[in-house]
Amino acid sequence: MAEFKLTILGSNSAVPAHNRNPSAQILKHHSTSFLIDCGEATQFQMNKFHIKRGKLDYILISHMHGDHYFGLVGLLNTLNLNGRKTDLNIFGPPELEQIILLQTDYKREDWNFKINFTPMTFGESYLLFETKNLEVFTIPLDHRVPCNGFLFKEKKKARKINIEAIEQFNIPKTLIKDIKNGADYVDERGNVIKHENLTSDAKERKTYAYCSDTKYNERIIPIIKNVDLVYHEATFLKEDDEKAVLRFHSTTHQAGIIAKKANAKKLIIGHFSARYANLNVFLNEVQEVFPNSAVAIEGEEHFI
Amino acid sequence: MAEFKLTILGSNSAVPAHNRNPSAQILKHHSTSFLIDCGEATQFQMNKFHIKRGKLDYILISHMHGDHYFGLVGLLNTLNLNGRKTDLNIFGPPELEQIILLQTDYKREDWNFKINFTPMTFGESYLLFETKNLEVFTIPLDHRVPCNGFLFKEKKKARKINIEAIEQFNIPKTLIKDIKNGADYVDERGNVIKHENLTSDAKERKTYAYCSDTKYNERIIPIIKNVDLVYHEATFLKEDDEKAVLRFHSTTHQAGIIAKKANAKKLIIGHFSARYANLNVFLNEVQEVFPNSAVAIEGEEHFI
Repeated sequence: MAEFKLTILGSNSAVPAHNRNPSAQILKHHSTSFLIDCGEATQFQMNKFHIKRGKLDYILISHMHGDHYFGLVGLLNTLNLNGRKTDLNIFGPPELEQIILLQTDYKREDWNFKINFTPMTFGESYLLFETKNLEVFTIPLDHRVPCNGFLFKEKKKARKINIEAIEQFNIPKTLIKDIKNGADYVDERGNVIKHENLTSDAKERKTYAYCSDTKYNERIIPIIKNVDLVYHEATFLKEDDEKAVLRFHSTTHQAGIIAKKANAKKLIIGHFSARYANLNVFLNEVQEVFPNSAVAIEGEEHFI
Repeated sequence: MAEFKLTILGSNSAVPAHNRNPSAQILKHHSTSFLIDCGEATQFQMNKFHIKRGKLDYILISHMHGDHYFGLVGLLNTLNLNGRKTDLNIFGPPELEQIILLQTDYKREDWNFKINFTPMTFGESYLLFETKNLEVFTIPLDHRVPCNGFLFKEKKKARKINIEAIEQFNIPKTLIKDIKNGADYVDERGNVIKHENLTSDAKERKTYAYCSDTKYNERIIPIIKNVDLVYHEATFLKEDDEKAVLRFHSTTHQAGIIAKKANAKKLIIGHFSARYANLNVFLNEVQEVFPNSAVAIEGEEHFI
């Protein structure tokens, strides 16, 4: 069973075109929901793709360009009108808080739920926050304004219990949690049974990296090394590499090279410029460099 | 030929639902374009209904509820990215300017076009601005926050020239403009030919009134008296009249009564609550009071 489910809500860059929306993604890890970036009309995309607004736990905004946050105040106001009571955690650039405050009443008594806003810092990767099962790190990107990507990493998991061995040694249920976490078992006679004999290796820790917006930036490679799935922006086709540098964006080939050098298992590219109507060329180009690639299509789901 | 063309871009109230968008309308008067309110995703609706973003001349924002302005900063940023050079005139509540400034760079040197922002006042109807052919007045509405509707009124028009009479009296072309504006013609012998004999009555001065959001408010009746077309909000059905009062909104019947008392020629209702999926009941109810009524449907055009 998959640990993560990623749903693309927006795949386009700043000027909306070709029925593509600006950046937004929903990442679910078991029952925890993260909204990553929130371009204009994200709440409409959530309606369209049957994503329950009320279930959001965390919102992460990468940087202060409108195509990554103009949908936020609309979504927050809708959550409030819908009577949300649960706290909502928002992480973003410091300037974002004033913009939210000016356009919501979230510090007023009649606002229904609490917003915990945490301003991010930029320049170095750090642990932004953790949930019960995940750590979320920033990925410092190289854009015209301060910008972070996000790395979602499952925490160390308990080893899997070997039920037959547990029965064979007649081990009390109360000890199983400790054994999963690495404790040996000592029976009534003082015999030590190593936990390796009672368990098998833990499931792999899955990872997802979101990298938008950025120009080609090898500094992120060690941070996302061996990632299971990486979303990397590819605003431009390879022939437009000079435009990409000037505008602090990446091309298809550059996204592919990052995924390859990071030894990623799979790559999704997105944030396509409005100048391109057809995404087939994007797919062909990126697969020249990194075969296990996909283009971001709104409504499509990816599992890790 | 019609003088005005109105295109509905959004017909819903605050919570987007049933594929209906929040408030926005495009009013065209000959070659001049007005955007009236600008809920989230208005720029996407303009794409959808093939309305050219670059042609906008004026934007009017009625009040500071998000479903009437959350699409504005996205639209402005897109106009800038598209390289607009022409000044854009925005009228709205004073608080709007800071929100625009915080989320655009429009006072910075590298912003491509000039925004002329004019803060509105509330409480009394006044001439907000005029164009070559129109006067635009505020309509003071009764809502939870200060709110203005807008009355668009054609200026006094020149009389229509009677070409046969002009030829009969052999009148020089250079005098025709004066005659249309009411001058008599004096021929070489000093004979006076009255302009009534050279012209016929001017075309009627057409009017459009936008009234959203408001509770039932008879004070607007003299302001919109004899209007050709009135858009009036009807957030609720008639059975929900208590909710309407509490939330400073109107019902179908109330919108119909206003249109009737104002002797309007035609009524469009909109700003429907998300609680109602089906608009047929709205149409039936409003027509009980005011037969020449329509419900606002996104993409539909109305001509005056």
